[in-house]
Amino acid sequence: MRPVIVVHGGAGVIVKEYEEGYRAGVSRAALKGFEVMKHGGSALKSVEEAVIVLEDDPLFNAGHGSVLNEEGDIEMDAIIMDGKTLRSGAVSAVRCIANPITLARLVMEKTDHMLLTCKGASLFAKVQGIQEVPTEKLITERSRERWKKNLLPGSNPVAYQLGLGTVGAVAIDAEGNVACATSTGGITNKMVGRVGDTACIGSGGYADNAVGAVSTTGHGESIMRVTLARLILHHIEQGMSPEEASDTALDYMKTRVNSIGGVIVVNHKGEWAAKFSTKQMSWAVVQDDQLQCGIEQAKGETLSDNKPL
Amino acid sequence: MRPVIVVHGGAGVIVKEYEEGYRAGVSRAALKGFEVMKHGGSALKSVEEAVIVLEDDPLFNAGHGSVLNEEGDIEMDAIIMDGKTLRSGAVSAVRCIANPITLARLVMEKTDHMLLTCKGASLFAKVQGIQEVPTEKLITERSRERWKKNLLPGSNPVAYQLGLGTVGAVAIDAEGNVACATSTGGITNKMVGRVGDTACIGSGGYADNAVGAVSTTGHGESIMRVTLARLILHHIEQGMSPEEASDTALDYMKTRVNSIGGVIVVNHKGEWAAKFSTKQMSWAVVQDDQLQCGIEQAKGETLSDNKPL
Repeated sequence: MRPVIVVHGGAGVIVKEYEEGYRAGVSRAALKGFEVMKHGGSALKSVEEAVIVLEDDPLFNAGHGSVLNEEGDIEMDAIIMDGKTLRSGAVSAVRCIANPITLARLVMEKTDHMLLTCKGASLFAKVQGIQEVPTEKLITERSRERWKKNLLPGSNPVAYQLGLGTVGAVAIDAEGNVACATSTGGITNKMVGRVGDTACIGSGGYADNAVGAVSTTGHGESIMRVTLARLILHHIEQGMSPEEASDTALDYMKTRVNSIGGVIVVNHKGEWAAKFSTKQMSWAVVQDDQLQCGIEQAKGETLSDNKPL
Repeated sequence: MRPVIVVHGGAGVIVKEYEEGYRAGVSRAALKGFEVMKHGGSALKSVEEAVIVLEDDPLFNAGHGSVLNEEGDIEMDAIIMDGKTLRSGAVSAVRCIANPITLARLVMEKTDHMLLTCKGASLFAKVQGIQEVPTEKLITERSRERWKKNLLPGSNPVAYQLGLGTVGAVAIDAEGNVACATSTGGITNKMVGRVGDTACIGSGGYADNAVGAVSTTGHGESIMRVTLARLILHHIEQGMSPEEASDTALDYMKTRVNSIGGVIVVNHKGEWAAKFSTKQMSWAVVQDDQLQCGIEQAKGETLSDNKPL
């Protein structure tokens, strides 16, 4: 199998001044993830490493740079899944750590559970020796400004949400194992304790060696209503390509619950897609040492962003 | 449409001395839920009322009677879903309330979110005027004994878990609307903050008027790995009956992740199933003013438990 990794940095509308930053961020993440597989690492390790790059990049809504909840605090969700075993780990509403995706992997590897939330996730992080990071250090000026604006009368947090980047990665390695990882700060000015699609298996992500892997982004509650990741994989099971399956599921989400979003997909044959019904989504893919990235729809071979490494 | 409600009280091995209590409990719940629809109420209200009966019954592992976590505390998960709109509400790791299913409904109806966890769920409960109930009042002698036994060296909490009853209900009303509700105390001696399938849409439950509704029970982590509720509905979409779809999905869960469980299903035509790969599952169904209940597999018309109301 030719390894491939696909990364997204969130679907929505990307403000002009951040365009280059988004492209650069997802490219760095995809390259980092691909390097792992190039050196014999697994798809699982690859997606974790890619997501860590984006969690550490303050431009994206995950880890450092996460949006603030109604109390001005940061509560984060993340999930990782191994398509070989269908094992998965996730955390929800976790506070004061830099890399929720790593904690999610530890939940998968070190516990009998799949999802730890809130205080329990923090306790587990402590036991695992993960450094506590004060919320202040995770907050960016941009997040704080957005939060303040949304506290004003007549504000529209949902509109401000557009362009905020949940991050994710999917990959298939040389042995044909697939994996997905998704991480987010959620929706800006959300209620305390709100958990979105990211922590919910089948919504924010799913991976199954027999079919493929998916990571999603968009309005979390709408993604949950259609269990978007699982839906796309069901379409692939029925014979669709990753692109057809993504378009079909995104069309259904638009029709049935009137919402838009974006997805990255890799199937068990290593075919991939990065599709969205939003105006834009930052994405990057590396296969055969070739990087492609963009913030507009991928058009296969005609892609102008095609760059040899 | 002829309204029908199906209820379960958990899959596993039911100890002889509790058999009658389980039958009586699920029957009471199903009758209560059916009454709602008989008086023109919705499937959504019906499943909530049925689950409240089981949460209030100390024999079942939900609400009063929930199992204890590693710290001897009770943290509960619940989900409710409306098949007409695909709207859903859920709570995870919520403490000190009698009826998590009602809080889940309020999340659906009163917030823009679908899942509130831990402290955030408690804050929301308070705002909604839901009475706080000390954990002590939710703990039964049986739960405490089981918890203590599991703290002993060499104990096997998973074995003790068998027979513990997550509860759930699915229904279709006269207008053809389907709904599901599931509520649980989770796995005995679980880690603090562990969230299982129940709070995860598509795993613990799913409802879609176009297809049907499902509520699941069993080993939560295994149910999540195969997103059991959504999987059954996908099989029904592909043309299977509720019974075939349930058997196929339970077989898959056995083969792929080596785990057993139980499900209740109603499809959009009002056909139902109560199936399990465990030794037993307490279940009850009411249709056309006829109650059926059992703890063994349902055998359609040959069922000896058939009773006119």
